[in-house]
Amino acid sequence: MILETINSPADLKKLNIPQLETLAGEIREFLLETVPKTGGHLAPNLGVVELTLALHYVLDAPKDKIVWDVGHQSYVHKILTGRRDQMSTLRQFGGLSGFPKPSESEYDSFATGHSSTAISVALGMAQAKTDDSRVVAVVGDGSMTGGLSFEGLNNCGQADVPMMIVLNDNEMSISKNVGALSNHLANIRASRRYNLTKVVVKKHLAKIPLIGKYIVRFAEWLKNFAKSILVPNVLFEQLGIKYIGIVDGHNIKKLIRIFENAKDLDSPVLVHVKTVKGKGDPIIEQYPSEYHSVSENCDMESVYKKKFSEQDTPTSFSLAMGKKLCSIADENDNVVAITAAMTAGTGLTCFANKYPDRFYDVGIAEQHALASAAGMASAGKKPFVAIYSSFVQRAYDQLIHDVCIQSLPVVLCLDRAGLTGRDGETHNGQFDLAFLQHIPNLTVFAPSTISELNLTMDYAMTSNTPVAIRYGKNNPSEHELVCDSAQNWRSTEPHNSADPVIFATGATVTMALNAKKQLSERGISVTVVNMLCVKPLNYLTLDRFSSSKLWITVEDGCIIGGIGSSIAAYASQNGYSIKVKSLGVPDKFVPHGTTAQQYGICSMTVDDIVNVVTSSN
Amino acid sequence: MILETINSPADLKKLNIPQLETLAGEIREFLLETVPKTGGHLAPNLGVVELTLALHYVLDAPKDKIVWDVGHQSYVHKILTGRRDQMSTLRQFGGLSGFPKPSESEYDSFATGHSSTAISVALGMAQAKTDDSRVVAVVGDGSMTGGLSFEGLNNCGQADVPMMIVLNDNEMSISKNVGALSNHLANIRASRRYNLTKVVVKKHLAKIPLIGKYIVRFAEWLKNFAKSILVPNVLFEQLGIKYIGIVDGHNIKKLIRIFENAKDLDSPVLVHVKTVKGKGDPIIEQYPSEYHSVSENCDMESVYKKKFSEQDTPTSFSLAMGKKLCSIADENDNVVAITAAMTAGTGLTCFANKYPDRFYDVGIAEQHALASAAGMASAGKKPFVAIYSSFVQRAYDQLIHDVCIQSLPVVLCLDRAGLTGRDGETHNGQFDLAFLQHIPNLTVFAPSTISELNLTMDYAMTSNTPVAIRYGKNNPSEHELVCDSAQNWRSTEPHNSADPVIFATGATVTMALNAKKQLSERGISVTVVNMLCVKPLNYLTLDRFSSSKLWITVEDGCIIGGIGSSIAAYASQNGYSIKVKSLGVPDKFVPHGTTAQQYGICSMTVDDIVNVVTSSN
Repeated sequence: MILETINSPADLKKLNIPQLETLAGEIREFLLETVPKTGGHLAPNLGVVELTLALHYVLDAPKDKIVWDVGHQSYVHKILTGRRDQMSTLRQFGGLSGFPKPSESEYDSFATGHSSTAISVALGMAQAKTDDSRVVAVVGDGSMTGGLSFEGLNNCGQADVPMMIVLNDNEMSISKNVGALSNHLANIRASRRYNLTKVVVKKHLAKIPLIGKYIVRFAEWLKNFAKSILVPNVLFEQLGIKYIGIVDGHNIKKLIRIFENAKDLDSPVLVHVKTVKGKGDPIIEQYPSEYHSVSENCDMESVYKKKFSEQDTPTSFSLAMGKKLCSIADENDNVVAITAAMTAGTGLTCFANKYPDRFYDVGIAEQHALASAAGMASAGKKPFVAIYSSFVQRAYDQLIHDVCIQSLPVVLCLDRAGLTGRDGETHNGQFDLAFLQHIPNLTVFAPSTISELNLTMDYAMTSNTPVAIRYGKNNPSEHELVCDSAQNWRSTEPHNSADPVIFATGATVTMALNAKKQLSERGISVTVVNMLCVKPLNYLTLDRFSSSKLWITVEDGCIIGGIGSSIAAYASQNGYSIKVKSLGVPDKFVPHGTTAQQYGICSMTVDDIVNVVTSSN
Repeated sequence: MILETINSPADLKKLNIPQLETLAGEIREFLLETVPKTGGHLAPNLGVVELTLALHYVLDAPKDKIVWDVGHQSYVHKILTGRRDQMSTLRQFGGLSGFPKPSESEYDSFATGHSSTAISVALGMAQAKTDDSRVVAVVGDGSMTGGLSFEGLNNCGQADVPMMIVLNDNEMSISKNVGALSNHLANIRASRRYNLTKVVVKKHLAKIPLIGKYIVRFAEWLKNFAKSILVPNVLFEQLGIKYIGIVDGHNIKKLIRIFENAKDLDSPVLVHVKTVKGKGDPIIEQYPSEYHSVSENCDMESVYKKKFSEQDTPTSFSLAMGKKLCSIADENDNVVAITAAMTAGTGLTCFANKYPDRFYDVGIAEQHALASAAGMASAGKKPFVAIYSSFVQRAYDQLIHDVCIQSLPVVLCLDRAGLTGRDGETHNGQFDLAFLQHIPNLTVFAPSTISELNLTMDYAMTSNTPVAIRYGKNNPSEHELVCDSAQNWRSTEPHNSADPVIFATGATVTMALNAKKQLSERGISVTVVNMLCVKPLNYLTLDRFSSSKLWITVEDGCIIGGIGSSIAAYASQNGYSIKVKSLGVPDKFVPHGTTAQQYGICSMTVDDIVNVVTSSN
């Protein structure tokens, strides 16, 4: 095994091309063996084996910096930079992160997780560096649809500092754009100037004695031909970035030669590499989306057979949302659905199949998702926008500025809210309750069960103002304290007015009920309140519990600026002499692990709730 | 006067071209007469007189929708759509907004204020509409540098629905990009494929008997020529958008003809219009940035003579920040400054002149500003990023994901924080205290005086973790309660332990001190605390005042999730029996007016503080 001899990129440089090719095969086998056990991103990493090998062969890391956009394709990089033996701990609590992390290795030059950041970050590094080190951004074609990538490219061309952008193109968004372009190039231009120029050229050419006519014909052919060569690179060159492409991303020899040529240019260069997502495994190549990310100890044979869209009784919030939205859309022609490159992840596959004309996948472009939804709402549509909580942070301004200032009836379905487990810091949705509740005109729901989700979807459908519904990645709870109206909270009975009250919402309702059970076994009585609507708060219910001596709030979001702090503020503003203890995510980023482990880190488990009550008694 | 006969766009259609040209002149005179009185955006509106006339002449508003990007160029539109007589109330409390506002007129199809939203919004409208109405986005070239514009364009080409984008190009960023491109086209390409193709073409051509050699030469000339025609529009056409340009933006006749042709195309079209910012007034044409926005009752003659960069004793926070940053940079070679198209506005002119190599204006690209700053910080630089508070909402994700997760030592200088007056809802920085305080690893300061600003800048310089410093548009206060260390709060003395305590920060410290004075005249003693550092809170100081019965918090930011709610939460968590009343921006967007009027709307004036104390006694 060559792989066993590779403990740092320096070891790669001792190998010849055939050995590197053998190594590529060994890495693929290793990935196919380890990732299905730990869970993680499989298809993207199979696609970048040669690309990563060639980069590390040519570069001198860690002095040279590689910034992995999104970072879920960094496993091969991790394997080559001394972390092969730790791959069995990938995404496990205390183990390797599924993303680059400078605290994990000096070879991880920058932490990533969200899309489209790498060009900007790498440009910053290239502008900052004072030595002869090199900076490389590796960016997928999907990430190029994000506005931040464009901002990065635009500044890159202007700054004109040496850096390399490796465009890892596995035939997603960019191909589509090129397709749109090709069609348009075939059409007659509306531009008068363009037509005019064409006429002038022809007139001049035609005047050439004897052969003029042939030259005109030839010139037209040539121009079309020139266009077809120019097209793929003009976009980048127009922004002042040299373009090299298209390179076969599975040919190590070619990749090495190209990277060698490109690495020491004195200005920004983009190397366009064509890869196959899932390369090396015929099933994964055929179903790259299904194998994009696999769960822990998954049955590899059956992953692609899962039919997300056809479950009668959906078990996840995502699928339940998609199903409910379909039934809402059946009744209301104005309903449209928008997602930002997460059709399956947000449960919208069913909607996309049923209503393709009312479905918009805008690519990784959360800002556009919200701004265009605002435009649609202003023109009479009812847009439901489904985005992951941590990704919608990127559309915070559009939510305020385009949706909520005008109070437009856009519905935001926030998936993956709260602590999300294995993906760690970058993917936790720990800020949404805080940043949603301070936006005026917005109503915010946090359902804990599918029936509550359905209630709030129905409410949102008839609302004339913006609504956000947030729910977690974990399966919905089943408990006895389900709210039967979107706006009213529900509490356990009977209530002794001096009893502690636990205010819970979404995923924490079940935790609160379990704490109540444990406390009851010790003879302590508490009331649990299920806050389905967290903005506006239900002040009447809060007042009803004003003779209690202890309120406990539990939310799977940051404590600072969260729902608990609003409840505490309400209590102290009214002079209630109630101690309010808020449990939730403390003032830190929460690393990867199971969500249970993450709750543990945050001291917001059932035991923690029990302890707060008993220690206050 | 033709202008007096124009009460709606329908009246325009009765005019012939010479009359429209006369009208254009009258509108310019009207703008030059009214805007210097009310204050507002002058140069941008002088630049779009003909463009707006031609659009309204050709379109059928309000059925046809015009979305004005940013919207500060909508005055001519307002004048033509029945609001001429109200122009004297522009930006005044209760008067016309300086931006489009659907609640103000049915002709204002969408509210704008921030940059780069119009293409996405217009696309949403175009996708939503079910009739034959038309949708037009008017976008400045500066706005094209924002990533959201790119996301909009990219989706626009893919959606392929009829809509018109008018690119109002007054020679800013786009010209620069084209410049970068031209240079690159002149260089030899690094692309092997490109060179290869060239060789193949030549080989084939050269084989043609007799004239082959000449055709090769001619073909090269032709290809270069074709490139030169193709270049300006390829960027858009590659994205699937038809391109018409370049049109003289001050030739009404041509504009009408082009818009007539473009308005009913069956796919997206971009009309590239060249305008002169400040057109019609020689001084303003020469100093368009200085006259971009003028203040109320300004002395028009002297506006351009102001030298922002050379004030010895700066009176605004912006200028003081710029001056202090220069002196910090004198001592520290690693200091760099970044702004997003707001060099003068954020006080960085002085820095830009003194340290051009350490200064980065990234265009209207706040996401890139923060992400590239993170890259720079990771490579050893000390970036100070100066952005307006409401604009940094667009970089909320980058602040969390790229700066704070890795705790990189980026300094964010947040200008125009709090209520900003005349620009209204879209420009108030009412959310920053709330969204900054819940981000882990970030230290947040709100200086109330220039000496406090300097203290916090010094602190930030030596900090190894991220720091945000937020300050308002209004001139800094001068008061006796200045903090003499970045981290310690300062309170008035002597203190009677049962006295009410007013916790204030930034702009509200002076208000609190004035309230104290008024209360003292009535024989009521209160303590005022100046919270320079609002994150982390100074818990020791809070504890010191735990025997008080009333805490009042005053902040020029949203109450929900704000500093006051954190203080209230701290009090109730510790079981302090203190009533905590939080003053600040209530749960709504605050319309334009003076900041004093805005404080009034928010019930957070000196009188309100006094009333809270007296009514609680």
